[in-house]
Amino acid sequence: MNDAALHTDTICAVATPHGTGGIAVVRVSGPDARRIVAQRWKGTSVATMPSHTAHLGHVTDSHGQLLDQVVLTPFDASHSYTGEQVVEIACHGSAWIQQQLLVSLIDAGCRMAQPGEFTRRAFANGRMDLAQAEAVADVIAAQSQAAHRLAINQLRGRFGDELRGLRGQLLHFASLIELELDFSEEEVTFADRAQVIALAEEIHAVISRLAGSYQAGNVIKNGLPVAIVGAVNAGKSTLLNALLHDDRALVSDVQGTTRDVIEDTITLGGTLFRFIDTAGIRQATDVVEQMGIERTWRALGQAEIVLWVIDATAPPQQVRDFGETLVPRCLGKRLIVVVNKIDLADAQAAHRLRLPVSDDTPVVEICAKRPEDVERLQQLVLHVAALPQVGSDTVIVTNSRHYQALTRADQAIVRALQGLRDGLSGDLVSQDISECLHYLGEITGEITSNDILGEIFAHFCIGK
Amino acid sequence: MNDAALHTDTICAVATPHGTGGIAVVRVSGPDARRIVAQRWKGTSVATMPSHTAHLGHVTDSHGQLLDQVVLTPFDASHSYTGEQVVEIACHGSAWIQQQLLVSLIDAGCRMAQPGEFTRRAFANGRMDLAQAEAVADVIAAQSQAAHRLAINQLRGRFGDELRGLRGQLLHFASLIELELDFSEEEVTFADRAQVIALAEEIHAVISRLAGSYQAGNVIKNGLPVAIVGAVNAGKSTLLNALLHDDRALVSDVQGTTRDVIEDTITLGGTLFRFIDTAGIRQATDVVEQMGIERTWRALGQAEIVLWVIDATAPPQQVRDFGETLVPRCLGKRLIVVVNKIDLADAQAAHRLRLPVSDDTPVVEICAKRPEDVERLQQLVLHVAALPQVGSDTVIVTNSRHYQALTRADQAIVRALQGLRDGLSGDLVSQDISECLHYLGEITGEITSNDILGEIFAHFCIGK
Repeated sequence: MNDAALHTDTICAVATPHGTGGIAVVRVSGPDARRIVAQRWKGTSVATMPSHTAHLGHVTDSHGQLLDQVVLTPFDASHSYTGEQVVEIACHGSAWIQQQLLVSLIDAGCRMAQPGEFTRRAFANGRMDLAQAEAVADVIAAQSQAAHRLAINQLRGRFGDELRGLRGQLLHFASLIELELDFSEEEVTFADRAQVIALAEEIHAVISRLAGSYQAGNVIKNGLPVAIVGAVNAGKSTLLNALLHDDRALVSDVQGTTRDVIEDTITLGGTLFRFIDTAGIRQATDVVEQMGIERTWRALGQAEIVLWVIDATAPPQQVRDFGETLVPRCLGKRLIVVVNKIDLADAQAAHRLRLPVSDDTPVVEICAKRPEDVERLQQLVLHVAALPQVGSDTVIVTNSRHYQALTRADQAIVRALQGLRDGLSGDLVSQDISECLHYLGEITGEITSNDILGEIFAHFCIGK
Repeated sequence: MNDAALHTDTICAVATPHGTGGIAVVRVSGPDARRIVAQRWKGTSVATMPSHTAHLGHVTDSHGQLLDQVVLTPFDASHSYTGEQVVEIACHGSAWIQQQLLVSLIDAGCRMAQPGEFTRRAFANGRMDLAQAEAVADVIAAQSQAAHRLAINQLRGRFGDELRGLRGQLLHFASLIELELDFSEEEVTFADRAQVIALAEEIHAVISRLAGSYQAGNVIKNGLPVAIVGAVNAGKSTLLNALLHDDRALVSDVQGTTRDVIEDTITLGGTLFRFIDTAGIRQATDVVEQMGIERTWRALGQAEIVLWVIDATAPPQQVRDFGETLVPRCLGKRLIVVVNKIDLADAQAAHRLRLPVSDDTPVVEICAKRPEDVERLQQLVLHVAALPQVGSDTVIVTNSRHYQALTRADQAIVRALQGLRDGLSGDLVSQDISECLHYLGEITGEITSNDILGEIFAHFCIGK
């Protein structure tokens, strides 16, 4: 199932971030890790160091010249990250030393590790399932608390546990079908087809819940896209700056200043939001601005939440005209109407506008220059986003590969269920069950191929 | 002498390079290191872990939520980098985790470390002298083998050893003078003034040799500046590219293409060279080009080696005219004449040019497009640079602070020597000796001030 057989050589790489710092860690993994490092080491015998102990000493370059004073820590295969002999060398964090140390180790018999190769070996050696291995990359890439928690939960094996539970149920299901097959020659209709159907429905419910969590999972992992649209000079860029607490967008009093789509991220309530500022929409005459407007509609297409910013002092008819162009484009998105510059208008401004939006569309009156108003808007966005709370046991699918496999597994179990209801013979139903098992196994890596593994680990950083 | 008394709190920082990677290391140092980390740790008891042992476990954020799976290694004060309790936490290298872990530790009672504060504590606790502490920053910054070796030698205490030897001699010297003072009331002229003078001369010789090594040391540390000058279109940029093995400078057949001074570095024979390409010199008419020429002369002023590139096919008189402008500006520098495009000229080209240079000026004929010619030029540059070989015991001063202190120490010993020769009384000579001791003590940190320390460690990275 896994590719353990390939890993007979010893690999090395810098595991810490690229660049210069106080210290850097070079990781060596493979059957000859201790033997190779020992050739470059001046200090206590590497061969006899107990696992998990740190030793101060020196390493040399390929010519036997002193390279650096380092701290060396060996890890035995039974308790290492990769499930192989590992030696970690903490050296000074100069780019020159890191490079020379790698060269020295390579000259002594190491091979430079490929991206993700340490984690791939950890998977191959059964130290983690494939979903956990993928979570390692997600943990490193996470930019918000929610994304981080989902990745950590997956790294701790929560998702794998759930899938293994499902596989257990499916195997039980398969055995019930087998039982029916065994008796079928005697033309005994299996007594408990109802029980089998109930089990299949239960499995279908779980798989379909997991697959259904992907939309939220994807948003949590990659950020929720929020488009800020409105007529020219409604104060969109000012609002974006206020949301982001900086001067990301160019703001001026000249109409039509913003011509590019500007995107920036902010974490609200532990979730990443990607705010997209857009060109103001008017009957554009000049070509450059027309292009900006087209980009605006495209950006709108990608958004899940749309903030329609209105100038409270604008003529109501003009606002309604704009709304009639905008609102149909927001179908299936969550729209929030933001009546801005309320400090310059009278109290009934929003009411008088008579907006072409549905009754349940939230309308909020703000002055983008007042922090408390911006805070109120942020809370509203967070409420409208309605993302699930991520606790320490939450399992939400964040990976498109897992989503695809779950979707196929779900299709298989639905076919099995249909077959059972239609009174199909057990051996036909069996095929669907084994297909379902196959797709679930792809997620955790019980079933895999070098292509899938290559694709997954190619996106890792080197040294992990 | 040192500032140990200040360090009663516990500090933390990321010790690995800034950014995202496989793993990052957070370092905690101070009397409460274990106690504070224990509050954020789920695993074996931190209090009872043996020093220098690595433990897999989890750390939590300030709210007790699981943050990451980490490897934790405690170091007892007697054998740690800082001479205090140290705990190192190797976490996943996400920017988010690194930041959250610091926040969590700070909430538990740590203070964020200032730049260089770990090393400053190591110095304060007598784990290294000041020259060694400074060498830590040099080791991290070193970009060439020679610079790296000098820094490593200094880190290993070679320079401090040499200075301590000098201080020993000076103290012996002082005791001889004291002896003279004790007997002076009895009007007994000290018998061995010649012996004292010989000792002072010996000390002067060592200090002056060390101070004199700074020029080479500075070049080794910061790179040797080499200017490439010549008439328009002589092939200077092509030569620079060939030297650098890339396309750093814009090359074209249009005369006067290079208007900016381009600088790039290359390591030859383990030493860093900073090559400076310059605008071609001609009777410039346009203003932009005139500015380029002025920059060329300025760049020439900073160079230690000048490569004068000549087009072998250029009219000899024009070359001589150029040389008469250039050569006087190269006084005190090492000039190499590079006759380029030799493939386009006849064999006697260089001879016929009758260059206005001294007989010992090396002249090399090349075609910048032939790698073997470029290699020959590189070897010549290396030979002309005549930098000292850096072995594992070489002590060369690379630090301007050390150079300044050595210069002052040397002035003091020269004054003492002069006083001895002039028959000055012992107590006057004593003053010079103690001044000399003072300046030597400043280098290793026996004598220091918070101002000096602040200045030194402010240039460190955080986490070291």
